[in-house]
Amino acid sequence: MAPQYAPSLRSRLPLVAFLLETIFLILFVFFVKIEQQHEQSGRESDSKLFISSYAEFQDVHVMIFMGFGFLATFLVRYGFSGSGFNVLLAAMAIQWAVLINGFLLPQRHHRREIHISMKSVIEAELCAASALVAMGAVHGKTNPVQLLLMALVEVTGFVVTQWILRTLLNADPVYSIMLLHVFGALFGVMVSWVLHREGIKPEHEKEKTDRKTGLFAMFVLSFQTISIMACQKISKKSRTLFLWMFWPSFNSALVGDYRRERGLKLTVIYGTYLSLAVSVVMAMSVSMLTSSKGKMNMVHVQSSALSGGVAIGVAMTAVHQPWIAMTIGFCAALLSALGYRYMKNHMLFAFECHDTCGVLSVHAIPGILGWFAHLFLRLASSESTIAVQFAVYHICVLLITACMSLVMGTATGLFLKWSIWRPQQDRKCFDDQAFWEFPNLVVHK
Amino acid sequence: MAPQYAPSLRSRLPLVAFLLETIFLILFVFFVKIEQQHEQSGRESDSKLFISSYAEFQDVHVMIFMGFGFLATFLVRYGFSGSGFNVLLAAMAIQWAVLINGFLLPQRHHRREIHISMKSVIEAELCAASALVAMGAVHGKTNPVQLLLMALVEVTGFVVTQWILRTLLNADPVYSIMLLHVFGALFGVMVSWVLHREGIKPEHEKEKTDRKTGLFAMFVLSFQTISIMACQKISKKSRTLFLWMFWPSFNSALVGDYRRERGLKLTVIYGTYLSLAVSVVMAMSVSMLTSSKGKMNMVHVQSSALSGGVAIGVAMTAVHQPWIAMTIGFCAALLSALGYRYMKNHMLFAFECHDTCGVLSVHAIPGILGWFAHLFLRLASSESTIAVQFAVYHICVLLITACMSLVMGTATGLFLKWSIWRPQQDRKCFDDQAFWEFPNLVVHK
Amino acid sequence: MAPQYAPSLRSRLPLVAFLLETIFLILFVFFVKIEQQHEQSGRESDSKLFISSYAEFQDVHVMIFMGFGFLATFLVRYGFSGSGFNVLLAAMAIQWAVLINGFLLPQRHHRREIHISMKSVIEAELCAASALVAMGAVHGKTNPVQLLLMALVEVTGFVVTQWILRTLLNADPVYSIMLLHVFGALFGVMVSWVLHREGIKPEHEKEKTDRKTGLFAMFVLSFQTISIMACQKISKKSRTLFLWMFWPSFNSALVGDYRRERGLKLTVIYGTYLSLAVSVVMAMSVSMLTSSKGKMNMVHVQSSALSGGVAIGVAMTAVHQPWIAMTIGFCAALLSALGYRYMKNHMLFAFECHDTCGVLSVHAIPGILGWFAHLFLRLASSESTIAVQFAVYHICVLLITACMSLVMGTATGLFLKWSIWRPQQDRKCFDDQAFWEFPNLVVHK
Repeated sequence: MAPQYAPSLRSRLPLVAFLLETIFLILFVFFVKIEQQHEQSGRESDSKLFISSYAEFQDVHVMIFMGFGFLATFLVRYGFSGSGFNVLLAAMAIQWAVLINGFLLPQRHHRREIHISMKSVIEAELCAASALVAMGAVHGKTNPVQLLLMALVEVTGFVVTQWILRTLLNADPVYSIMLLHVFGALFGVMVSWVLHREGIKPEHEKEKTDRKTGLFAMFVLSFQTISIMACQKISKKSRTLFLWMFWPSFNSALVGDYRRERGLKLTVIYGTYLSLAVSVVMAMSVSMLTSSKGKMNMVHVQSSALSGGVAIGVAMTAVHQPWIAMTIGFCAALLSALGYRYMKNHMLFAFECHDTCGVLSVHAIPGILGWFAHLFLRLASSESTIAVQFAVYHICVLLITACMSLVMGTATGLFLKWSIWRPQQDRKCFDDQAFWEFPNLVVHK
Repeated sequence: MAPQYAPSLRSRLPLVAFLLETIFLILFVFFVKIEQQHEQSGRESDSKLFISSYAEFQDVHVMIFMGFGFLATFLVRYGFSGSGFNVLLAAMAIQWAVLINGFLLPQRHHRREIHISMKSVIEAELCAASALVAMGAVHGKTNPVQLLLMALVEVTGFVVTQWILRTLLNADPVYSIMLLHVFGALFGVMVSWVLHREGIKPEHEKEKTDRKTGLFAMFVLSFQTISIMACQKISKKSRTLFLWMFWPSFNSALVGDYRRERGLKLTVIYGTYLSLAVSVVMAMSVSMLTSSKGKMNMVHVQSSALSGGVAIGVAMTAVHQPWIAMTIGFCAALLSALGYRYMKNHMLFAFECHDTCGVLSVHAIPGILGWFAHLFLRLASSESTIAVQFAVYHICVLLITACMSLVMGTATGLFLKWSIWRPQQDRKCFDDQAFWEFPNLVVHK
Repeated sequence: MAPQYAPSLRSRLPLVAFLLETIFLILFVFFVKIEQQHEQSGRESDSKLFISSYAEFQDVHVMIFMGFGFLATFLVRYGFSGSGFNVLLAAMAIQWAVLINGFLLPQRHHRREIHISMKSVIEAELCAASALVAMGAVHGKTNPVQLLLMALVEVTGFVVTQWILRTLLNADPVYSIMLLHVFGALFGVMVSWVLHREGIKPEHEKEKTDRKTGLFAMFVLSFQTISIMACQKISKKSRTLFLWMFWPSFNSALVGDYRRERGLKLTVIYGTYLSLAVSVVMAMSVSMLTSSKGKMNMVHVQSSALSGGVAIGVAMTAVHQPWIAMTIGFCAALLSALGYRYMKNHMLFAFECHDTCGVLSVHAIPGILGWFAHLFLRLASSESTIAVQFAVYHICVLLITACMSLVMGTATGLFLKWSIWRPQQDRKCFDDQAFWEFPNLVVHK
């Protein structure tokens, strides 16, 4: 049934992982300490801050591992890989992000030492999140070694971009780090564009069956499809639900530490909440409206429902009224649902660029919408001279992020094309069997 | 295979959802502000309160979206709808509950302005929860437009009832809001009774297959059933587990704010915890005892295991000893498991009323049991004059809630019978295909 | 298709459960009170402590019910039982642990009264966790009555061991309670060894099908296996993810109360986090390296990924640098992955001992590794006289735990062999149908 095996990664993945892990370990030995200064400072306020940031850390953590872990489970044969590689990548990316964040970003005042704190771990997880967004675009067309290398390059690129923004433009970290969606999505799409091969047809995404057995196969299939649906249902819904549930924490995680403005934090929480509620309603409506049969599509709904959270994340520091947040959620879901419905296939035919999870519609477009909303809100509330100043600064931030992302994405794509990484054959794309043992299947042969 | 399509909702659902969402948005523009007074008051105690209520908010949130979202997943072909419509309804109901709560309920002292706070969001989510309980009774027999309208009427009815109880009877909000289970369940059952059509047979709930192919179909089925079971297992267990895990928070979410009695809050948490532990054990035992083959039934177990939490929720302000909580859990699980096993079918034959998720056994009966427990505990600990006074007041509360629920449920049912809402054909009941695109299935035709 | 039914437990399980539950209830009536002393003491620090410990309680709670609940879901036909019995056992074990903990362990100063507090509930859940680890070794080969009795004996044994360690050796509770993994795993393996029957073949774990229909069955199967895989994917991943996500809380739950050293708590959180990240990477690498085809095995990966958390849990009070935690995670995953790959089958052939979930590799070996790490770290940082003293004490702790575990495990095994408990027939092992109704299946017959 499988005449030609996928190229084994036994000599690649363990080697690369061992090597990287050892390097990380050595760097940790010499440079990383656990922050102990909590003990000197006052206990009362400190411990309160700690409890609060620990809860946020856990929410971000849950979101990255559960939320993004189920991103690619709508690919029926790619569930093991979709969730398994997500954990692998996140584990590596977080370690690397702790290190590179500590070396590059200027807010730490320790020489030659990186101190792990709640804040640094949360930042590292947000960097890992941008790598996971990028992974969404190339899911199913890359092997774990390629994904691992892509993730590390992506995290490096993202942290360097952050460094540029904060050093050159003196950007607010809370604001600049939320461009992770735009950076990750553009990076991933570029990698996917460079790696595109003729043989990877979009039909690969669907399950292929050999039709030899005619009606018989059809019959089996109709049952089986329903049962797979039943499975997917769960995973799909879990994904959206998880992302929704924890999104307010995700957006607000870094606000408190920098600003210490509680008002802002409340606005972010309620704003994200309302924005997501509106975008769920809109995503379902648009999905039903644009369908030829007047039915909803679960994949569209779940993807677009999240766009409100992405958009509000970028715009949040300028949003002060609940209805503005709701309007942003309204527009984001509208654009994202239309994008998911029409853009994915057009992109493939026009640009030969296949975006597996539609990250362009789900992350990049709402991110840019949020950026525009931020711009307009600031322009509306400022005097004219400050407004022009802000507009220039604001446009620079997006341009730098986008350029870095596109350039590094292309470079990474070319690097990953190297055949030493043993890319999958075309016919093994979107298939778990290339990477995972299926013990039960083997037993019955 | 599908000779006649289900009536398309393309011209209904998006229209209704757009319209309602726009109305909500306009109301939010004029009336809703984010509460900013936190900044004036003392920071220490304030921030502590905020952290605590944010954690509770999140628990309630998780419970509503995960817990209730998996309520109807035991319907094998209704998983997409069961979980998808739950999110849609909750998103709309929460927005509406924030508005109507702000207009009606007297504890806000702002004129013409509604301030969003943690407390108002938690209350809105509890109102949405009562709509989701009601939805449990009509699952599979209504389309999303009907569900949406029902949810909004239900929330309105519930808030009006709360307003009556608090204004006329000066009822304690902590106590009156916990009648959400009784209100929701009775409301849902009445709607289901009015909407009942001859054609909706209970067998619809099970998966239908055409038996043409005899043994072949049987064979396929036996495999397929197991795999669907495997899927259901997960979703079913997740549901119960989620509800259990977060129930203590659910019950205790509102206590702290009103009473500021920490002893009460502790009692609620430990009491709910122990009550649930006992009701899990009892639900399994009763399910095995009443089965003809001495086996447990997963649907019964999961439903009845939760009844302890419902009952203790209503009785909680009067419970002061762990063993009382455990006894309430014991009785609630006993009644609920017996009810689920025997009452559902009897109700259908005797009253032509079909209760899809058995909300009468899972929510109404334990709720009323908790009400009785509350009554007896108060009578036992009070003097005779106060006791009579309390009994009269207590009976009035239940009567008003039940009457409002029954009357409004019947009215809503009649309103939803209107054919403008395009009810499903009988043969499309309990089937996802009426509302959802199945891309994979289409590809293989 | 099922010529001989499994022995019905209708006369056993409900009886045992009713009886035990009634005994617990009576004991609760006379001995257990809810702790009310919070009200006298200062409110500020108290409430802070409460919020913090409630969050930890919930994390431990989620972990026990979600994490351990999905332990046995890789057994394709045992998912209902795996998750259902887990809840039943945990519910009973927690009640029993609250009681016996209150009677035996010396840190409570109330005579004849047990006060429920957050700390006592968390401790009770940790005791229940050790029973759930033990259950992992005997899953599928025992009926729920046996499991229930085993869990209660295990909890008793574990609490008695704790009592011995704390009374005789004056051991630190934080340190001694973390030996729950070692105690539970050894206990479970001994029970499994005593209960071993010739008829229980390891092939039982896999799904058995009658091959009469030849190619036809094969064809159906290949589809069906994939769809079961799709289901398992979800459950499997959920399990590991849940355990990972909440492990830092699990390890740190008890530290704060006893030590009040915030530095230690931070070290535990970051250490566990990094240790788990490293062990995820290592588990995947080793699984791919040792596979004959260069593919990963999901069951191995998920099991070994957690070993870092177990090891660091035992060693945590001696770990002060992030890189030490990472090294421990590295070694634990290496040993555990090798153990899971090779030891399970060898154990079966050499000792006739079948360890269903591989608890020896997942819990015992990393636990002992953590114990060694603890020893070396202390020896390296102490003077020679203190070092020898500590080594003797440390070795005594492990020896006492291991001996108690082995002896009580063997005794429990012999007790459970008694045929009054109606053990399953060999051919009904690892099968849900012995204990659960499958309504859909029945309907179509």
